[in-house]
Amino acid sequence: MARENQDTRAELIRSGLELLTEQGFFASGIDKILKKVGVPKGSFYHYFASKEAFGRAVIENYASYFANKLDSHLLNTNFDPIQRICHFVEDAKSGMRKHQFKRGCLVGNLGQEVDVLPESYRQLLLDIFIDWQGRIEACLLEAQQQNLIAKKANCQRLAEFFWVGWEGAVSRARLSQDARPLDNFLLQFIDGLPR
Amino acid sequence: MARENQDTRAELIRSGLELLTEQGFFASGIDKILKKVGVPKGSFYHYFASKEAFGRAVIENYASYFANKLDSHLLNTNFDPIQRICHFVEDAKSGMRKHQFKRGCLVGNLGQEVDVLPESYRQLLLDIFIDWQGRIEACLLEAQQQNLIAKKANCQRLAEFFWVGWEGAVSRARLSQDARPLDNFLLQFIDGLPR
Repeated sequence: MARENQDTRAELIRSGLELLTEQGFFASGIDKILKKVGVPKGSFYHYFASKEAFGRAVIENYASYFANKLDSHLLNTNFDPIQRICHFVEDAKSGMRKHQFKRGCLVGNLGQEVDVLPESYRQLLLDIFIDWQGRIEACLLEAQQQNLIAKKANCQRLAEFFWVGWEGAVSRARLSQDARPLDNFLLQFIDGLPR
Repeated sequence: MARENQDTRAELIRSGLELLTEQGFFASGIDKILKKVGVPKGSFYHYFASKEAFGRAVIENYASYFANKLDSHLLNTNFDPIQRICHFVEDAKSGMRKHQFKRGCLVGNLGQEVDVLPESYRQLLLDIFIDWQGRIEACLLEAQQQNLIAKKANCQRLAEFFWVGWEGAVSRARLSQDARPLDNFLLQFIDGLPR
């Protein structure tokens, strides 16, 4: 693919991400995205085989961006593992604030619409959650090794509990347009960790 | 309004609820609903002033149905307050299972779409969450009076934590099409209550 094509493809993905995180798949017409990027409708299929393939590229792009963000906090050994989780939440909070709480989590948004999306997205979205949970689980296991949480704690189940609740908190923060639900979620989660 | 009109109005709300809990507001065309109920498009405005007013009626209808379901468990003094919360979760679980995990929570679904919905829905949805949380809070306060949870617990914050996480769990259960996320959420929430 020529350089210019690569750029247009990347811009389509970026614009798709923006619309999808704000509005979800159904409300986001491909038309809006093409118009924004300035690509004639006829040439969309030059870049992506289908709307489904385009959506998949947007989702995968977001998943790897987000995994990097998670790692930048959860693997930062300058802080204890519990603090690292708090730092991730702070980072996500300022991200949401920057966009006036209009953007949620793409994977969470699409998860809500999954029954009207291409069926192949279901497993894709589940796998992304499992990947993110694995990163939280590893961090909780470190906390356990450092005796910050009890030996009896099931870190895999706690990591799923974290991620399920986190998605709920992001969704509520979009609704209330403030960070309070994120703060309260974090506080209660940390307080509830078995010591 | 004549009897027949009342029935058609109620049937429009019922059908709207079904589509909205499965697909959300944007994906649900009014057309589909009218077709299902067998109402000619021209006569929709005989029943509702606008699509917005129709959506509001559907939401309010769901909110009061759900408040009654909550009360039937949370006010049942045959069981201790913690058990009552478990019974509500069991009830919701069997409801989701009955619909093959295709239906989520209407209020949660619409909360995700709120930025593309009529602006008046934002406060309406928030008020409904606050109402439901209040019912959980009252139940947790009873648990506190019975020394089932610690005196220092902030039941209001715990109730918000419950509801935020619950919506996340319902959303994940729709995605994974099984009850595991609901079970894990309940288990971790109960385990994390301050004793």
